[in-house]
Amino acid sequence: MSHGLMPNEVAEGTRVGLAPLARGLHRVGITANAVTVIGVLITLAGSALLAAAQPLPALVVLLAGALSDTLDGQLAKAAGGGTRFGAFLDSTLDRVSDAALSCGAAALGATRGDAVLFWSALGGLVASYLVSYVRAKAEAMGTTASVGLMPREARLTVLLVGIGTWGVLGLYQVFVAAFAVVALLSVITLVQRIAFVARDLQKTTPREGPR
Amino acid sequence: MSHGLMPNEVAEGTRVGLAPLARGLHRVGITANAVTVIGVLITLAGSALLAAAQPLPALVVLLAGALSDTLDGQLAKAAGGGTRFGAFLDSTLDRVSDAALSCGAAALGATRGDAVLFWSALGGLVASYLVSYVRAKAEAMGTTASVGLMPREARLTVLLVGIGTWGVLGLYQVFVAAFAVVALLSVITLVQRIAFVARDLQKTTPREGPR
Repeated sequence: MSHGLMPNEVAEGTRVGLAPLARGLHRVGITANAVTVIGVLITLAGSALLAAAQPLPALVVLLAGALSDTLDGQLAKAAGGGTRFGAFLDSTLDRVSDAALSCGAAALGATRGDAVLFWSALGGLVASYLVSYVRAKAEAMGTTASVGLMPREARLTVLLVGIGTWGVLGLYQVFVAAFAVVALLSVITLVQRIAFVARDLQKTTPREGPR
Repeated sequence: MSHGLMPNEVAEGTRVGLAPLARGLHRVGITANAVTVIGVLITLAGSALLAAAQPLPALVVLLAGALSDTLDGQLAKAAGGGTRFGAFLDSTLDRVSDAALSCGAAALGATRGDAVLFWSALGGLVASYLVSYVRAKAEAMGTTASVGLMPREARLTVLLVGIGTWGVLGLYQVFVAAFAVVALLSVITLVQRIAFVARDLQKTTPREGPR
């Protein structure tokens, strides 16, 4: 349902282009949730190809996974609107897809003995999860923490461009740099959010004791 | 603030035993938040020792980290009650500690070429984050998903017993099995929660279209 890896105009064009396909799939009885699940399986396969140091096949498969991620929303629309469970499943499996890509890169780093790739992939994984966690926790405590977001689409675009640069031009270091940049930006976002929550909670709450 | 790795009676005993230390630290001006931050740094050091295949030093340092995790709550109490930011910081840094331990084990698996340890550590990391995410997302959508929890304390206890068994008795396979068991239980919990949310959302929501 999210628009995957693409800038707005491209995303809109893709949605329009996918609409007939979505209607066709709907006619033969394929549901949006089925496409969501197939999309995450495609992304898992792409991540495994990345782990196996096959950047070009990985890129093609990961792009197919990102397309599925646009198609499921179209299919829900063709079916007359999405369900709440569909929205829940879609956003949960987005997190699984993100994790799969990071784990694939970490496994590649481990195999090649590339500590920068390994720690960038793991650092990005942990930081991006903490970014979501801090937001949810802040909202549960009656405040917000939506500052400094690097949106999922931007993150995925940078990583896919990195994989493509390695696959097409053979520039492995650009690929590693893409993961390092995403990790660094995620850590910065995380620190921003924690600082934001700290200020907000100290502003709104009277101190409850001499700490 | 959570009671770390220990069963209830031991935890209660530890809390009572730590109370004088907490009051002493409070008198010399050390805050609960400082102890929370020092605790996560200790756990990071312990995780690095684990990554360096030093199970016994890792165990000692990780136990000290777990003690700090009990001490910060005591210190907040000695200071006349915790703040909301203290609670936020404590639970966020608990997630950082969990991630550090998993990353340490994954790095060890990578160095030793142990795929079972590597994937158990990463799988456990991703599944436990998704378990939190699914709960937060479900609550944001007006339902709940608190079924099938393997509490943090139980998870940490199993992992520390595994590290101790390796360190004291030299049984490396028991250590790997501890991470594999935690990963498996986390995945089961995740699937239970998704299924629970699915049933709940389908029960309470009229279908909004012919999917």
